[in-house]
Amino acid sequence: MKTQQFVVIGLGRFGSSLAMELMDLGYEVLGVDINEEVVNDMSEHLTHAVVADATDEEVLKSLGIRNFDCGIVAIGDDIQMSILAAILLKELGVQTVVAKAISMLHGKALSKLGVDRVIFPERDMGIRVAHQLVTPNLLDYIELSKDYSIVEMTVPQCLNGKTLSEVNTRARYGCSIVALHRTEGVIVAPTAMDQLHAGDIMVIIGSNSNIDRFESEAVNVKS
Amino acid sequence: MKTQQFVVIGLGRFGSSLAMELMDLGYEVLGVDINEEVVNDMSEHLTHAVVADATDEEVLKSLGIRNFDCGIVAIGDDIQMSILAAILLKELGVQTVVAKAISMLHGKALSKLGVDRVIFPERDMGIRVAHQLVTPNLLDYIELSKDYSIVEMTVPQCLNGKTLSEVNTRARYGCSIVALHRTEGVIVAPTAMDQLHAGDIMVIIGSNSNIDRFESEAVNVKS
Amino acid sequence: MKTQQFVVIGLGRFGSSLAMELMDLGYEVLGVDINEEVVNDMSEHLTHAVVADATDEEVLKSLGIRNFDCGIVAIGDDIQMSILAAILLKELGVQTVVAKAISMLHGKALSKLGVDRVIFPERDMGIRVAHQLVTPNLLDYIELSKDYSIVEMTVPQCLNGKTLSEVNTRARYGCSIVALHRTEGVIVAPTAMDQLHAGDIMVIIGSNSNIDRFESEAVNVKS
Amino acid sequence: MKTQQFVVIGLGRFGSSLAMELMDLGYEVLGVDINEEVVNDMSEHLTHAVVADATDEEVLKSLGIRNFDCGIVAIGDDIQMSILAAILLKELGVQTVVAKAISMLHGKALSKLGVDRVIFPERDMGIRVAHQLVTPNLLDYIELSKDYSIVEMTVPQCLNGKTLSEVNTRARYGCSIVALHRTEGVIVAPTAMDQLHAGDIMVIIGSNSNIDRFESEAVNVKS
Amino acid sequence: MKTQQFVVIGLGRFGSSLAMELMDLGYEVLGVDINEEVVNDMSEHLTHAVVADATDEEVLKSLGIRNFDCGIVAIGDDIQMSILAAILLKELGVQTVVAKAISMLHGKALSKLGVDRVIFPERDMGIRVAHQLVTPNLLDYIELSKDYSIVEMTVPQCLNGKTLSEVNTRARYGCSIVALHRTEGVIVAPTAMDQLHAGDIMVIIGSNSNIDRFESEAVNVKS
Amino acid sequence: MKTQQFVVIGLGRFGSSLAMELMDLGYEVLGVDINEEVVNDMSEHLTHAVVADATDEEVLKSLGIRNFDCGIVAIGDDIQMSILAAILLKELGVQTVVAKAISMLHGKALSKLGVDRVIFPERDMGIRVAHQLVTPNLLDYIELSKDYSIVEMTVPQCLNGKTLSEVNTRARYGCSIVALHRTEGVIVAPTAMDQLHAGDIMVIIGSNSNIDRFESEAVNVKS
Amino acid sequence: MKTQQFVVIGLGRFGSSLAMELMDLGYEVLGVDINEEVVNDMSEHLTHAVVADATDEEVLKSLGIRNFDCGIVAIGDDIQMSILAAILLKELGVQTVVAKAISMLHGKALSKLGVDRVIFPERDMGIRVAHQLVTPNLLDYIELSKDYSIVEMTVPQCLNGKTLSEVNTRARYGCSIVALHRTEGVIVAPTAMDQLHAGDIMVIIGSNSNIDRFESEAVNVKS
Amino acid sequence: MKTQQFVVIGLGRFGSSLAMELMDLGYEVLGVDINEEVVNDMSEHLTHAVVADATDEEVLKSLGIRNFDCGIVAIGDDIQMSILAAILLKELGVQTVVAKAISMLHGKALSKLGVDRVIFPERDMGIRVAHQLVTPNLLDYIELSKDYSIVEMTVPQCLNGKTLSEVNTRARYGCSIVALHRTEGVIVAPTAMDQLHAGDIMVIIGSNSNIDRFESEAVNVKS
Repeated sequence: MKTQQFVVIGLGRFGSSLAMELMDLGYEVLGVDINEEVVNDMSEHLTHAVVADATDEEVLKSLGIRNFDCGIVAIGDDIQMSILAAILLKELGVQTVVAKAISMLHGKALSKLGVDRVIFPERDMGIRVAHQLVTPNLLDYIELSKDYSIVEMTVPQCLNGKTLSEVNTRARYGCSIVALHRTEGVIVAPTAMDQLHAGDIMVIIGSNSNIDRFESEAVNVKS
Repeated sequence: MKTQQFVVIGLGRFGSSLAMELMDLGYEVLGVDINEEVVNDMSEHLTHAVVADATDEEVLKSLGIRNFDCGIVAIGDDIQMSILAAILLKELGVQTVVAKAISMLHGKALSKLGVDRVIFPERDMGIRVAHQLVTPNLLDYIELSKDYSIVEMTVPQCLNGKTLSEVNTRARYGCSIVALHRTEGVIVAPTAMDQLHAGDIMVIIGSNSNIDRFESEAVNVKS
Repeated sequence: MKTQQFVVIGLGRFGSSLAMELMDLGYEVLGVDINEEVVNDMSEHLTHAVVADATDEEVLKSLGIRNFDCGIVAIGDDIQMSILAAILLKELGVQTVVAKAISMLHGKALSKLGVDRVIFPERDMGIRVAHQLVTPNLLDYIELSKDYSIVEMTVPQCLNGKTLSEVNTRARYGCSIVALHRTEGVIVAPTAMDQLHAGDIMVIIGSNSNIDRFESEAVNVKS
Repeated sequence: MKTQQFVVIGLGRFGSSLAMELMDLGYEVLGVDINEEVVNDMSEHLTHAVVADATDEEVLKSLGIRNFDCGIVAIGDDIQMSILAAILLKELGVQTVVAKAISMLHGKALSKLGVDRVIFPERDMGIRVAHQLVTPNLLDYIELSKDYSIVEMTVPQCLNGKTLSEVNTRARYGCSIVALHRTEGVIVAPTAMDQLHAGDIMVIIGSNSNIDRFESEAVNVKS
Repeated sequence: MKTQQFVVIGLGRFGSSLAMELMDLGYEVLGVDINEEVVNDMSEHLTHAVVADATDEEVLKSLGIRNFDCGIVAIGDDIQMSILAAILLKELGVQTVVAKAISMLHGKALSKLGVDRVIFPERDMGIRVAHQLVTPNLLDYIELSKDYSIVEMTVPQCLNGKTLSEVNTRARYGCSIVALHRTEGVIVAPTAMDQLHAGDIMVIIGSNSNIDRFESEAVNVKS
Repeated sequence: MKTQQFVVIGLGRFGSSLAMELMDLGYEVLGVDINEEVVNDMSEHLTHAVVADATDEEVLKSLGIRNFDCGIVAIGDDIQMSILAAILLKELGVQTVVAKAISMLHGKALSKLGVDRVIFPERDMGIRVAHQLVTPNLLDYIELSKDYSIVEMTVPQCLNGKTLSEVNTRARYGCSIVALHRTEGVIVAPTAMDQLHAGDIMVIIGSNSNIDRFESEAVNVKS
Repeated sequence: MKTQQFVVIGLGRFGSSLAMELMDLGYEVLGVDINEEVVNDMSEHLTHAVVADATDEEVLKSLGIRNFDCGIVAIGDDIQMSILAAILLKELGVQTVVAKAISMLHGKALSKLGVDRVIFPERDMGIRVAHQLVTPNLLDYIELSKDYSIVEMTVPQCLNGKTLSEVNTRARYGCSIVALHRTEGVIVAPTAMDQLHAGDIMVIIGSNSNIDRFESEAVNVKS
Repeated sequence: MKTQQFVVIGLGRFGSSLAMELMDLGYEVLGVDINEEVVNDMSEHLTHAVVADATDEEVLKSLGIRNFDCGIVAIGDDIQMSILAAILLKELGVQTVVAKAISMLHGKALSKLGVDRVIFPERDMGIRVAHQLVTPNLLDYIELSKDYSIVEMTVPQCLNGKTLSEVNTRARYGCSIVALHRTEGVIVAPTAMDQLHAGDIMVIIGSNSNIDRFESEAVNVKS
């Protein structure tokens, strides 16, 4: 099977991080930016990196853009360039086009122009960081629905040595510990006899309010 | 108990998103930016929003910054301002100072100056989006360790109506479905008899390579 | 019947000329521009003229844009502003949205976004002027099809006093004089006995090549 | 006979469109612009295209400007450059000099300096578009005099199948249908028995008020 | 008799000097400049001084420009503004319009537009200063023709006490001393017995070559 | 005798005019300007022209500035550069240093720094032009003292054919005609019988008030 | 006796530090800067601080500059402004004028214009810091002549408890300890029996080479 | 022993002066600046001078920065660059890092980041110059403590010929003359019989108030 090929247009902080992660995951990545210095910095980390104006159809054609499986328009602040590049990628036949938006109106324009997926990285990251700030033990989380989440939390000192049945999150807080991650490995669906060790990571599923209650009553207690 | 108070310095796309999410989560937020227009736009969404130079000690004092529980320096591109504001927040006695960095060197400087937590939102978001792009059914994920993740995936048409025992992810792919999320609610630790419905969300835990194998062989199949 | 209402966004040379002509034709026109000086200059010529950022949804709402029958986005060189303003007019429910494009790609974007009519004034005018330059007696013309036109030409001195039957454009050149315009008035479908007077305007219909031949052999002759 | 030669100074949107149309019409065109990028873009579409300052007499001489039949000063916004280039073309002996003006005062200056024809493309196009906007069936038009026009209109559904004698524009509205354009070809001076087909184009001559009345009463009727 | 009225447009170094000298000579002067600071500095030295855009017809009308006897366009470096202001002054009926040009082409444009007198102050001053530099005793001069001048020279020490007959400029050098200017007053057409005093000013008329010879042989001698 | 050598620093309108006049007068001129384009334009008109920063001592030394007889600092608007260049010329031993000043304070600085002669070309030219404007027949003039001048005037129609004794300027107006310049040549000290011809140039000496009276009563009369 | 009055022109880092030290020393200081923000910051630290253009004679007069005993031109990088302000202070009769120069040529200009003392703070500070860097124990020093200095050095651990006669700097190194500064006070001209204590400061006088030798052999020894 | 090696980052007025003094003192100095012109000017005065961005780790490594004994960050006004360069020097293992600060907050940041010594050259120089201004005979001084100084003063005319016992500074003013510097050489610890000569330099030690009293009563007397 042919390796999937990505073209990332705009190699700012977001675009370059995305492009390098795609490389790490084993894909081929062409990076495009209008700024020569930026391209030079990235050229050794990507399959190819070229200085080009992504709103110039001839240029994109000469790069063989039509053969790429996915194009990501990660252009920073220039809405005009972002919109024109997105249209061109669609026109040239790139299968999937993803584009970063910097405002709701920009996002709406991209969607109307047929962009397959519009992302708002700064907005989304702001939301993620807000959650982590208000729950200091929270390492990461997935929002399953508006009210339901899976969260990853450090086991605090006060729960050290306790078995799951002692903590009894399901009965007391209405949420379940579905996995434990410790140095030795990950325990999926731990039993009631499994012990918590301070510093382990526990993965908890439940409604946001139940998880919050558990966190403030059992985890984040100052002895 | 007193509501926790946050001061967010820099109300760009990241800072404003973070500040508004903190408001949604029920906290008090003071927004500070040097740009009057930005502050006007945010003033109705935050507890307070003021136009101020966050590198001017007298100004920060007059805002009573010392009484805030947490200060977030979300200044966009101006490393100098970011560093000076971070020092001042620490000097003035803000308990927890979080700051956004735009390069590794910037992050190193912030850490050395005593900032409690340094975040790289664009870099992190680039990484998240890269993962979602290469696994189209992937909705969200938590990286438990370098090799182990929890992922949230849509149930594809090809698995519609199958029971968990039929799919048998643990035996075949070495990963477990720890929760199912459907319109009716969330099923934590589903049983072998629970059926998958196309469009449901399944939460899977396992090593990255096993999850990848499951995704490419069982989920992302073109009939 | 209610007078039709137009909103013209962008009051540069093209937009202001269009807006004033609409006024002359008896319609109500709201002019919008971001530049205060431009608005001041136009305010006495239009029903209303306001300084506003046409990419700000709240501002457009407060101007009651939804009640206008037709919106013309005549923004000069700023593709981003043009695109965002066009989306907003459509979103707000303006029935017909017309927009000026400055490049083919810009035009394509506007069409995809649902703009009802995209115009290229500079390009079209360039074409019109080219035709007039190569046919000095040509005053104006309508292109009926790629090959067929109606043209308006001054009667040259060399045809002065000749009757239509003497000139006999149909037999000799395959094109017809369908009207004559002289000081006394317009003669529609003139007869074979009608005389041409130097300086009159004759309206001719025919294929472009026939009209060209007529023009170079009979009209534009140096005695 | 030698092909006529044109020099177009200023290759912006108007100038480049005009230059390319002249090429299409079979003439030789030298394009001149001070901006290298613009010249590169046009060089393959014109006989020649050069980067040059059109206010430098030596440069114009070296280009052999005196041998051109017609010079068009299509400089965008720089009145000074437009005026100086126009003088130089006249001085160097170009037979016909045409120049674009961007304001009445600019136009007056050009005329006084001996420019043979001054054009106001944006203003004229604004007027044309205004007419087309207020008469949706209007495709194009020629203004014979202040009160008299020839217009090109689409035959509406409500007139489908009617003969010209049934419609009887002359008696009822005081205007005449002088030609019909349908897929099969153009009918000049159609007879009373010719039928209108919806979608055909009819060419009508008459006073503006009569044409307007015809358009609003017979053409633009909502059934 | 009514005092003559001047309007000076452009109050830079040349314009302001000219305007103030006209005031000293007893005339009424209106100064116009687009720069407020410049106008403030001049307002106490002129009859009136106003901040205005001299290319705005309405503004010039409201200043009553048509009533001025003479308008001087002394605009520094902005050829466009200079040309448009000059046209307007002519249009508005100012009797005499004088304008400063900064290049030959600019001067040609002004003349063609009907400006009554075009001046090149920097060029002319450059020429005057060149003459004074090469003839150190030369105080001032009038060029009667290309070859003939009147010059004003200081009497050198070496001629002190000599009578005009002793110096005998007419016989020896072919030029005449037509006046002597000394502390006691001016002697017009001095006689052969009049004595020269070192430091007196003598006014000499003759061909340039004769004056030069006199200067280098009799005046500028190092003893 | 060695030809005198001049170095002109600053080749703007004033400096280049001065430098070219010095060339015409037969001297050697080195032109110096920091602007390459300006130097290129002048290089064919001067002995040498170089691009150089005249405030860089090493550069001036390498040009052999010390060997020039006279240095003229004709720098346009940059007072700092003018002052530093003037000091350097003096330091390097240029015999005579002349500098253009753009304000009284600038002039004072130059004098204090030892500049041999400070000139104010725009101011002086403003004054000259003012005199010519108020006396339309005045061609040129020399100011002998504050009250006494020599002026050059065209003989008006009303004096045509009159002898000097008829006009009798000395008795009637207290001023003398010291020379007449006509196509045939110059008449120095014309006799009472010499006739004036309209269009001749007469050179008049007298007090300013007397000359003015003669001009307004005898010369500038509307018949 | 009247308190001495200083006016400091230019309130940058050097000027403001100087002005505040003068205040600390008990003098009256007027601060002048063209930048309003800078003046606001300083206004509470100085007797007076005003926003003014120090090259405007009228402004300086209205500030009563002539009554100040000493004027310091501490203008940062603008040589033109520095020179013009310095001339004006001298013209207006300020007794002593001190000015900061940023280059040798600038300094030369200031001296020629009559400035009483020209200082080069950045150059001098560079030199001082260089000396301190190469002699780590050196606290401060005075250069008596090119070869002779007084230096202030910390007594190192290796000399702790030694008497001056034991160290015997005069005999061994040819330099003398003229004072000792310890917590208890300063001992001027210490005797041979006085003991050195690590951490005391000793003031040494001698030739630079002797002091260097003493420093490297006796003071800066690694045991 | 290996010669000590310095790297100076930032070659403005302060940095270049420091670097050149280090060269004069016999050390090896690498100069680094981002401005090519500055580097060219310095390259002949330093061991090496390179154009480089001192915030680019790879660049600094390639220059072998880790081998330098001391790094001085003398960057002018760019706090961001100053901070990042300082971190890098520390990271790369430079033993001693000295940095110039332009504000207290900047200085605080540098200290927190581990910079060994923070200097404020403009502030310190402002203070030094203030002292010299208020004590005209003061040549230089060392501040031993807040209240005690050593000062260098010129011997005034009024003390000419007096012996130290006659002046008797210790008894009358409580301060001592510890050295005399005259053309013949330096007298350390002069005796009571040594005579003062006007123009000699005397080095005095004492409390500030005593020195001041001596200066105003004995030195700075107008006879």
